[in-house]
Amino acid sequence: MLSKNQIKYIQSLHQKKFRQQHGSFLVEGAKSVEEVLLSDFETELVVATDAFYKENSRLTDNQRTRVEIASVADLERIGTLNSNNAAIAVVRTKENRPLVAEPGEIALILDDIRDPGNLGTILRIADWYGIRTVLCSETTADVYNPKVISASKGSFTRVRWWYGDIVQFLGESVSPAPVYGAFLNGTDVHTLPFEPSGYLVMGNESNGISTAVEQHVTQRVTIPRYGDAESLNVGIATAVLLDNWRRSRG
Amino acid sequence: MLSKNQIKYIQSLHQKKFRQQHGSFLVEGAKSVEEVLLSDFETELVVATDAFYKENSRLTDNQRTRVEIASVADLERIGTLNSNNAAIAVVRTKENRPLVAEPGEIALILDDIRDPGNLGTILRIADWYGIRTVLCSETTADVYNPKVISASKGSFTRVRWWYGDIVQFLGESVSPAPVYGAFLNGTDVHTLPFEPSGYLVMGNESNGISTAVEQHVTQRVTIPRYGDAESLNVGIATAVLLDNWRRSRG
Repeated sequence: MLSKNQIKYIQSLHQKKFRQQHGSFLVEGAKSVEEVLLSDFETELVVATDAFYKENSRLTDNQRTRVEIASVADLERIGTLNSNNAAIAVVRTKENRPLVAEPGEIALILDDIRDPGNLGTILRIADWYGIRTVLCSETTADVYNPKVISASKGSFTRVRWWYGDIVQFLGESVSPAPVYGAFLNGTDVHTLPFEPSGYLVMGNESNGISTAVEQHVTQRVTIPRYGDAESLNVGIATAVLLDNWRRSRG
Repeated sequence: MLSKNQIKYIQSLHQKKFRQQHGSFLVEGAKSVEEVLLSDFETELVVATDAFYKENSRLTDNQRTRVEIASVADLERIGTLNSNNAAIAVVRTKENRPLVAEPGEIALILDDIRDPGNLGTILRIADWYGIRTVLCSETTADVYNPKVISASKGSFTRVRWWYGDIVQFLGESVSPAPVYGAFLNGTDVHTLPFEPSGYLVMGNESNGISTAVEQHVTQRVTIPRYGDAESLNVGIATAVLLDNWRRSRG
């Protein structure tokens, strides 16, 4: 049974301040908890319904993870999901290590993506298109926000990220790799021959790519528009751009 | 100033039952209200802040729309948005008329898309790719749901829709046009030569395309996967498929 202190601890992890203080975050729902238990993340506690525990005890036993049994009502009270009939895991955050694009990969650079749902969706898209590396400006939503983890549908276990000064990174660490940037007035991605590897910068939901970052973009790219919508959501645009990169490589 | 009856009427339109009963729906926020006033929708009432009204009185005057001035607090109390410092419009719904794909268009057929955010996003994507026709199963989310209208970012004014029995429609009205259907085991859309016009079926968020609809699909299509995510969100998949259709047509 959950103690008052455990409940307080789990609820504190809804907030970034306490996630940073404790070095841990929440993973919620059957699918995400199963995936995190199969990943290289270190899980410190699983709160699960009896049914979920019985089905997945092999996973928690393997990781020697502490398990507390709770009711559905408890899971929904201590977690952030409106509906959770399975489990919540408390998982250790990872060290914020510098990363660069791998050979054969277009790493994503996120310049001030504010919406947690968008960030989670972008992790899922990266995972679909075989992108493992996501570099985030300090102002980008916190990847450990429960909404990001939830929207990523388990893909957070297969993608790695770094938060830091992306302007400095672009100035010091990327040359001679191409830096693609999504703009409304760049080269048509239906005809652009993409390089096999490099970086793709996606900008803020309202303001796009910032001036400081734009100076490091070596190739402006655009999704051609055939109708009248003013723009595409940043998650949608990321998917279409990565799809065109993969398609152009044959 | 808003009367109690007006407030009650507007709040009732949060619910589908009352939208159907009154034949009206809500459009909220500066951008969407401006777009609806410029469209062929008939607006019966605009509730606006003094500032929004002063900036847009030309639009409401043109349509001879009744205007009530309200505070930001009022707008947020009677509407569905957490934040709205501009306006809410009460707009007449349109007649549910049968539609078919236009020449040069891949009309969308939505088979049980349940999430209002997904439906709104799909309208926006259709509008970006120049698709004007969206056919919805009766079980698809209500297009007049405020969340759909809001997520469509004004695109609901440029796309037309029909709700009805899509199985019957597919059986009677589409031949010989191709019916593309999104599956996880179809032909790779990176190499498929799409026809200039026809239909594209997108299925339910969890279960995909239903068996009854599947029987009318003439070409199964698939977005190739390069990584490990199990699936893509239905809005994302719609965008990538339409982008490949446009790209394959050159």
